[in-house]
Amino acid sequence: MKKFINKTDDILKESLTGFATAHQDLVQLKLEPHFLTRKNKAQNKVAIISGGGSGHEPLHAGYIGYGMLDAACPGHVFTSPTPDQMLAAAESVHADKGILFIVKNYAGDVMNFEMAAEMLPFEHTTVLTSDDCAVINSTYTTGRRGVAGTVIVEKCVGSLAETGASLQACKALGDKVNTRTASIGVALTSCTVPAAGRPTFDISDSELEMGVGIHGEPGRRREQMREADAIVHDMVEAILADFKARNLSTQNQECLLLVNGFGATPLMELYLLYNTANQLFSQHGVLITRSLVGNYTTALDMAGASITLCLLDDEITAHWDSPVHTAALRWGK
Amino acid sequence: MKKFINKTDDILKESLTGFATAHQDLVQLKLEPHFLTRKNKAQNKVAIISGGGSGHEPLHAGYIGYGMLDAACPGHVFTSPTPDQMLAAAESVHADKGILFIVKNYAGDVMNFEMAAEMLPFEHTTVLTSDDCAVINSTYTTGRRGVAGTVIVEKCVGSLAETGASLQACKALGDKVNTRTASIGVALTSCTVPAAGRPTFDISDSELEMGVGIHGEPGRRREQMREADAIVHDMVEAILADFKARNLSTQNQECLLLVNGFGATPLMELYLLYNTANQLFSQHGVLITRSLVGNYTTALDMAGASITLCLLDDEITAHWDSPVHTAALRWGK
Repeated sequence: MKKFINKTDDILKESLTGFATAHQDLVQLKLEPHFLTRKNKAQNKVAIISGGGSGHEPLHAGYIGYGMLDAACPGHVFTSPTPDQMLAAAESVHADKGILFIVKNYAGDVMNFEMAAEMLPFEHTTVLTSDDCAVINSTYTTGRRGVAGTVIVEKCVGSLAETGASLQACKALGDKVNTRTASIGVALTSCTVPAAGRPTFDISDSELEMGVGIHGEPGRRREQMREADAIVHDMVEAILADFKARNLSTQNQECLLLVNGFGATPLMELYLLYNTANQLFSQHGVLITRSLVGNYTTALDMAGASITLCLLDDEITAHWDSPVHTAALRWGK
Repeated sequence: MKKFINKTDDILKESLTGFATAHQDLVQLKLEPHFLTRKNKAQNKVAIISGGGSGHEPLHAGYIGYGMLDAACPGHVFTSPTPDQMLAAAESVHADKGILFIVKNYAGDVMNFEMAAEMLPFEHTTVLTSDDCAVINSTYTTGRRGVAGTVIVEKCVGSLAETGASLQACKALGDKVNTRTASIGVALTSCTVPAAGRPTFDISDSELEMGVGIHGEPGRRREQMREADAIVHDMVEAILADFKARNLSTQNQECLLLVNGFGATPLMELYLLYNTANQLFSQHGVLITRSLVGNYTTALDMAGASITLCLLDDEITAHWDSPVHTAALRWGK
């Protein structure tokens, strides 16, 4: 294992300190328990808090700021944060309109956020993301996994919250975006968790893992490596089949297409994947009207990528387009 | 070699098409010869054109847009673009105030941009970037290599050009920023050029290449792998020594610190490197007042990173802070 780290136990603190220093115009870091908030506390809005194991940067701390999250609670690498982190974050950012947790559907995250919620002295609710259509039930998960679609949920709910919308309205939009989103990932290499010191799974130079999770969990199957177009074809088909099985039409449907790198895939390849995915979805009658390409939900140093399709409507489109000012997503005024 | 590609000959066209489609609100792509321009031609300003071999994304196409480049000319992977590309790009974007080429100092790029310049029917000049303090003369280079500091040059010169400044003023600012910038890179793994199909250099699991170039060119020396703090220490010392040797004081000097990933390094590690670099520079009396952390000048799938320090003054700071609206850098209105 070759990584830019010092002592394994110090990675999180050192990396978070670097993040908070580099983005001191946007965020504040608190340690013991660890959480990050906006530099300036927002008022008169639902406070949006996310979190989860580290190793998926820029998720979630990179999405703290105007138009997105109020706070993020990072656990150790691929390890859930603990309830004291969520409670401290909630105490810090609540602004009299309640707390909305956005939680990726992994058993540890779900359990810890539930424990925090039970102790929370504020009105609260949770949006559970589950956009990964690759598998149902997996290592760490009962049900579908929450992956890169979480970024779209956080962006849209964060936008709505800025308007002063109610907790119930924010929850409803989050659930809607999650329902209208499907993702699937593919790995060319494993990731290596620093504390483990060796790759999470073995994979040969002639194989790929179709449907891989963002912690290196098994996907649908191990397959032979092949050309990008053939890989993307199968990913696009999986996403379309998922929407079909859930009676959500993609025909003439305006969509957001997100091609997400897992951490070690060059941008040149991500744009090549986007090119094929855009063409194939278009051939199936999907109208790609919004796009995002880059490393937005990573899996440490995994070479691989995921494709996410979100079925837009006027409400989702407006909240996707609205101004956002975070370390990892920034547009508008 | 496992990469998300189809035929090796088609990588550039497919990737550029994906880029131009995903960012159709910002850019236009022309093929044969290949170049990209802003979607809407700018008027009454110096036209800024950059280019170079592909594989360094988001350099340069990701920096096309308001406040930065007018056009970019991408060559094949790690291969210079040809004069017909620069000529076609210049013809497309010139706006009666001349053409400024920003060229990284590699022999092929320098030669091809010079050939284009000789044929150019417009007033023109060139800023040659040479921020890499690792080595003097190298594979592909006579003199110092141009690396991630090029992004700072493009941002500042692009900002000045938007004000309607003259070609000479843009050239002078570009040269000043380049002089006041020093970078050094380190590789943990080689990159793999698709057409070659195998790593550019061999490196063992216990080694790193200190001072590596962004094409995998040799650096200062092969060293034993060690903790991040020790690696960053040596990089910071190299940068400080470079400024000292050039009689540029870093004491109480406001600076921009850029920690740049080479393509396969997780963001979590880049922020950890930033944390150490920020601390060490601060201990040496450097005042880090601006920061940028991420993949801005890459080397395909190389695991590694570079550190860049730019000595700010009021003019450079103002142009760094000014609004920019490109695929890879975006802030301000």
